[in-house]
Amino acid sequence: MMSAPKKVVLAYSGGLDTSIILKWLQTEYGCEVVTFTADLGQGEELEPARQKAELLGIKPENIFIEDVREEFVRDFVFPMFRANALYEGLYLLGTSIARPLISKRLIEIAAETGADAVAHGATGKGNDQVRFELSAYALNPDIKVIAPWREWDLSSRTKLLEFAEQNQIPIAKDKRGEAPFSVDANLLHTSSEGKVLEDPAQEAPDYVYQRTVHPEDAPNTPEYVEIGFEKGDAVSINGEALSPATVLTKLNELGGKHGIGRLDLVEGRFVGMKSRGIYETPGGTILLEAHRGIEQITMDRGAGHLKDQLMPQYAELIYNGFWYSPEREMLQALIDKSQEHVTGTVRLKLYKGLARTVGRWSDHSLYSEAHVTFEDDAGAYDQKDAAGFIQLNALRLKLIAARNRRLSK
Amino acid sequence: MMSAPKKVVLAYSGGLDTSIILKWLQTEYGCEVVTFTADLGQGEELEPARQKAELLGIKPENIFIEDVREEFVRDFVFPMFRANALYEGLYLLGTSIARPLISKRLIEIAAETGADAVAHGATGKGNDQVRFELSAYALNPDIKVIAPWREWDLSSRTKLLEFAEQNQIPIAKDKRGEAPFSVDANLLHTSSEGKVLEDPAQEAPDYVYQRTVHPEDAPNTPEYVEIGFEKGDAVSINGEALSPATVLTKLNELGGKHGIGRLDLVEGRFVGMKSRGIYETPGGTILLEAHRGIEQITMDRGAGHLKDQLMPQYAELIYNGFWYSPEREMLQALIDKSQEHVTGTVRLKLYKGLARTVGRWSDHSLYSEAHVTFEDDAGAYDQKDAAGFIQLNALRLKLIAARNRRLSK
Amino acid sequence: MMSAPKKVVLAYSGGLDTSIILKWLQTEYGCEVVTFTADLGQGEELEPARQKAELLGIKPENIFIEDVREEFVRDFVFPMFRANALYEGLYLLGTSIARPLISKRLIEIAAETGADAVAHGATGKGNDQVRFELSAYALNPDIKVIAPWREWDLSSRTKLLEFAEQNQIPIAKDKRGEAPFSVDANLLHTSSEGKVLEDPAQEAPDYVYQRTVHPEDAPNTPEYVEIGFEKGDAVSINGEALSPATVLTKLNELGGKHGIGRLDLVEGRFVGMKSRGIYETPGGTILLEAHRGIEQITMDRGAGHLKDQLMPQYAELIYNGFWYSPEREMLQALIDKSQEHVTGTVRLKLYKGLARTVGRWSDHSLYSEAHVTFEDDAGAYDQKDAAGFIQLNALRLKLIAARNRRLSK
Amino acid sequence: MMSAPKKVVLAYSGGLDTSIILKWLQTEYGCEVVTFTADLGQGEELEPARQKAELLGIKPENIFIEDVREEFVRDFVFPMFRANALYEGLYLLGTSIARPLISKRLIEIAAETGADAVAHGATGKGNDQVRFELSAYALNPDIKVIAPWREWDLSSRTKLLEFAEQNQIPIAKDKRGEAPFSVDANLLHTSSEGKVLEDPAQEAPDYVYQRTVHPEDAPNTPEYVEIGFEKGDAVSINGEALSPATVLTKLNELGGKHGIGRLDLVEGRFVGMKSRGIYETPGGTILLEAHRGIEQITMDRGAGHLKDQLMPQYAELIYNGFWYSPEREMLQALIDKSQEHVTGTVRLKLYKGLARTVGRWSDHSLYSEAHVTFEDDAGAYDQKDAAGFIQLNALRLKLIAARNRRLSK
Repeated sequence: MMSAPKKVVLAYSGGLDTSIILKWLQTEYGCEVVTFTADLGQGEELEPARQKAELLGIKPENIFIEDVREEFVRDFVFPMFRANALYEGLYLLGTSIARPLISKRLIEIAAETGADAVAHGATGKGNDQVRFELSAYALNPDIKVIAPWREWDLSSRTKLLEFAEQNQIPIAKDKRGEAPFSVDANLLHTSSEGKVLEDPAQEAPDYVYQRTVHPEDAPNTPEYVEIGFEKGDAVSINGEALSPATVLTKLNELGGKHGIGRLDLVEGRFVGMKSRGIYETPGGTILLEAHRGIEQITMDRGAGHLKDQLMPQYAELIYNGFWYSPEREMLQALIDKSQEHVTGTVRLKLYKGLARTVGRWSDHSLYSEAHVTFEDDAGAYDQKDAAGFIQLNALRLKLIAARNRRLSK
Repeated sequence: MMSAPKKVVLAYSGGLDTSIILKWLQTEYGCEVVTFTADLGQGEELEPARQKAELLGIKPENIFIEDVREEFVRDFVFPMFRANALYEGLYLLGTSIARPLISKRLIEIAAETGADAVAHGATGKGNDQVRFELSAYALNPDIKVIAPWREWDLSSRTKLLEFAEQNQIPIAKDKRGEAPFSVDANLLHTSSEGKVLEDPAQEAPDYVYQRTVHPEDAPNTPEYVEIGFEKGDAVSINGEALSPATVLTKLNELGGKHGIGRLDLVEGRFVGMKSRGIYETPGGTILLEAHRGIEQITMDRGAGHLKDQLMPQYAELIYNGFWYSPEREMLQALIDKSQEHVTGTVRLKLYKGLARTVGRWSDHSLYSEAHVTFEDDAGAYDQKDAAGFIQLNALRLKLIAARNRRLSK
Repeated sequence: MMSAPKKVVLAYSGGLDTSIILKWLQTEYGCEVVTFTADLGQGEELEPARQKAELLGIKPENIFIEDVREEFVRDFVFPMFRANALYEGLYLLGTSIARPLISKRLIEIAAETGADAVAHGATGKGNDQVRFELSAYALNPDIKVIAPWREWDLSSRTKLLEFAEQNQIPIAKDKRGEAPFSVDANLLHTSSEGKVLEDPAQEAPDYVYQRTVHPEDAPNTPEYVEIGFEKGDAVSINGEALSPATVLTKLNELGGKHGIGRLDLVEGRFVGMKSRGIYETPGGTILLEAHRGIEQITMDRGAGHLKDQLMPQYAELIYNGFWYSPEREMLQALIDKSQEHVTGTVRLKLYKGLARTVGRWSDHSLYSEAHVTFEDDAGAYDQKDAAGFIQLNALRLKLIAARNRRLSK
Repeated sequence: MMSAPKKVVLAYSGGLDTSIILKWLQTEYGCEVVTFTADLGQGEELEPARQKAELLGIKPENIFIEDVREEFVRDFVFPMFRANALYEGLYLLGTSIARPLISKRLIEIAAETGADAVAHGATGKGNDQVRFELSAYALNPDIKVIAPWREWDLSSRTKLLEFAEQNQIPIAKDKRGEAPFSVDANLLHTSSEGKVLEDPAQEAPDYVYQRTVHPEDAPNTPEYVEIGFEKGDAVSINGEALSPATVLTKLNELGGKHGIGRLDLVEGRFVGMKSRGIYETPGGTILLEAHRGIEQITMDRGAGHLKDQLMPQYAELIYNGFWYSPEREMLQALIDKSQEHVTGTVRLKLYKGLARTVGRWSDHSLYSEAHVTFEDDAGAYDQKDAAGFIQLNALRLKLIAARNRRLSK
């Protein structure tokens, strides 16, 4: 069994649940707590978290509050989008991709502060516990990880609130009742699950959606946007150069306004059961469409097909929490190699929930009008070559057919 | 070299180009011509093709006109949709999947009529020649295949029309000028390419779209539809049992009305260059979304991930013309095995170009509310199991981290 | 937590360890025990197991002793060999493939005898616990599984022997000391691991090998053998038709005599660490070589390459214990589809540890001397076709090169 | 059609066939010829090629003779061995891997000498024409490639000899008759095919083997060898640091002496038919075994399994001639990433045709005796974790089983 931790770095949102965890760590383990609160673009103020942490007795030097949005998009979101990653064909992995960054900072802060443990607020039923912990162990094999939800006996809302009251943890009024569903958000997406969403036959109520307008309420006029790419990453919008996080922020605004990026999904969790989630990924949905658009003219067929073939495994690794694994890094090396010429501009039309590529151009284009034209191609392509091409591709099929005919006689 | 054919079965649409081919075969090879005209759901009358063939001297017993829509959907489209097949991430393979059926009938008719050759009207630059011919050779290794576009010197529109006039082939008035783009259509899709579409930077003009309304012109009110599945195939719409072709026809109406299924794509052809196509697949786009929806609750994660991993290769095989290949049949066996429980109903919302799953239910469901619930699960799942699950999944990552740490000292 | 089992079916070898488990189950859980002892070809008498079970108080009707060798080879070994399965490039999966069969019989016997639990003697560090239990749960989701090695506190040899003495379990003299390594055996292989083998830098001592002579001691004269195949399975040796288990037995004799099938491997376990094993698979090694030999002439290239690509995942599934999973069954459907024409005969040369294919022939052969010959091929193949084949395969590479040249200017 | 070449760089061996080609190029095209003769370790003197070229009228500045053995092993053989590449499970790709290097030098020499074409002596039936030409076009999209065997009418041995005599090309006495089989050799392997080998049922005659002794004639005493690796490449033998080509030369001596590396294979050619080859790869066979040996302790399971899964496609790309393709380079990036810690030493036993790993050690080892030991592991591994690991891995299988049970009621 794990020996008791002496000092623990907690992934702390400032909310009720992680405040209870903070106090529980202090009381259960009698250990010093360091808090880490990250701005991943979830759209909440961070300073209240500092005040709450102080209120709960955390020393100022043990409170870490950081804006990691640029790092998040540059080092996690963008590398993933180079792969056109979709889990189970549809999910853009918005929650999955944020976890390794949080774990990385927890481990770094543990090293800085001399902590021997980290803690998180993910439950024992979900994927996030796995993602947090695999990343943590991959970065520090000796770290202790505390997952209070798997340990404590605060198994109902009532018990949690009792614990909070007993420990003078302030409870916002609207937290007294239970939320009708659970939410996770960052710059890439907002996910909602649980409670009212647990019956996958029932359409999600309108009020679940928080980040995108209903397509019915989106503008009646389409909007066009041009996204510039360099080596597979979005670097500009409508000609204006932007940083990674700023690109994504801007695309979120556009997508949100046009009702783009909603997904109602039942997915297979790594821990074994299926769950239903409502995802809103407005900017990411546009970005995926645009990235495919620029790859269409700049990426060779052989390269693209290999990428497509490996994408599901890559997405699965991220979903399952293996960002910091050799196989994810190997796949990333392969993917990044493919992006050297993925540079150019894509024009998209946004309208009522749909983002569609309608044009793309690039100095790196492999599209050759000379070869494809229905007009005279001035000798670029000799149609007679196709006869030999077909004959040799057919040869093995002919040999099979001849064998089968021979045997059936 | 191939010896001269004596009797050839021609894939004959009744249009100007294949009428010229018909005459050219007669004059160039002096051979008897059999015509095969198929109703694949392209939306054209077939009887005029009979009259034209007769006019060009084809004996009545050599004119084959058939409605193959049910066979097309049942034996080609549906098996492909079981795989969620998308070529290069986006293309539903509407043209590719029709070619093997045509070749199959050409070869069968050749056997019935004692013909030693088949002929088609695909050019030497495209994928269709490959698809026609690989299928033909796979079904009859001794068949001769004639591809006039690769052989003759009718290399311009002017020469074609001259040939037509010299040979008394009637030319419809609107065929005097050149079409602004080229079209292929069947029950699954309509594709347009060439001419005005050859610059992939330019948005396709509105008049290119023929089968779907512009999303802007689609109804302002969403429409819901429920699709029933059995073993992976759609069998009913809104509770009404329908045959395969009827299901697809009905979905095409729904999709066309709501502007669903438009795609502007630059793709990598098997013959080596990139080309740009505008595809409209209204019913197929709804069907893919619905099939993924029913798989979400009825298909195991391990099964689904394996399917997803192999889908790109399966799609590539169909795109490249290898429908009648052992590897496509092997993949089909794998895919069909996975569909045994893909039975149930999906509810979708159709609106302004978008088809979205909003609910799904099935007696075959693997979704377990008892396991996933945020509420008390009555012991269905022991959260403590997750700790061991994570520890053993982490073990190899810890060993790597410990090794790297050891070496860096 | 699991409620206490009332009646448990134990995988019982009759050896000291499983006898201790038998007694421990009786004392710890106070439950009725049913024993299952299988002849998998491990080369031990089974009747002593019956006597021991009776001695330990098992009712006669609760003692199941069965010869499952034919089922083992026909339904498990042969299907696996159709895939040319090798784990981590080298391991023939001899232990892995036996576990699902044992679990299957445990579950069936539980149903017959009204037992609510099964038990096995695998430790908590190895793969076998996973294989036993995944199979058991896949066949009966409500079964209880008891793995005494993960539960009890008999953590040393001394404690085990004390427990045995206290419970009147007879201890064979040679079991007083510890074995220098641990052994598992069945008709497919013998594996040895642990203790003296734990340092992977040290060559395994000669006395570890039990089933194959040292190559140095093998006959100085090569021996030839001809193996007949039907649909991928070996059905005859030197012209004599044999049952599955008899084929493998005979190949084991041949391989053992010639020192064939030894492997010294460090492998990655599913539970996370690496382990070192010495494997002897004499007949299986010959069979794999022969199966590849017959596939060489009877299997199409496209089919074979797809199989090769998927083999590592198939092997991993078996190694990890997922025999009874949908994805293994899907892969099996694919593999079995590929074997329809894998019928014919292979001639091998056996000599001093090596089995090499030296000839193969089949009515189902796809090898065409007419096509491949250096001599005049009478028009079977037109070398000029190769020019077109190469041009179109090269086209995309030329477009890349032209693009890169253009950019570098 | 290709315009006539003005200056052509010929891959020139100095043998009769390429001498005939040289003269044919001069007479057929009236073009200037540049010869390139490479020492790839084929074991022939190169200076005679210079004299013959001069005799045939090639200007001294147009004669290029080079020792490329180090480049061959370092930049082609070693990268390929990092992947453990085997084509169709068995073939070490000895011919395939040499072609891109030759094409690279042909293209470079063409640039240096202002030539507009290259020529090779591969026939129209084999893979080598494809490999030469795909590489050439990938490196220079505008190069002309001349493949005389596909063009000329010298279709019999008699015609070739007549042409030689008419053109004063000296014919070695032993070339008057036809060779009983055709040979290709380089530092990695010797391949033999054709003529007496064309019946795959017949064992290859002893005299075909040229580079390895018959196992029966190999020493009766095993020999041990230790091979040191750094980042996946062999760098030393028995403790002596050696250059890439020297390592391979030394391993060839060892393998040849012990009869190691013989293969009798029927393989599927890229051009569509099956062919039978006898391959001797003495050093390469040892190297593959050793590389797998060192990976066993230094490579993580996840990394290794991904490599294994992709190996067949990587091997196919090399076999088919796509060395200079983006997808091969992408896979190489993935593979090279995996080799960063593949450093250490392997001990092998060589005996009568067999090379077997018997020990391996490394500072980079991931093998942990503490974790795997049968003895007390001092808490390195908690066996109870396995229970949770199994439960969650089993969960989806249980849900399937429960579903199926429910439906069968």
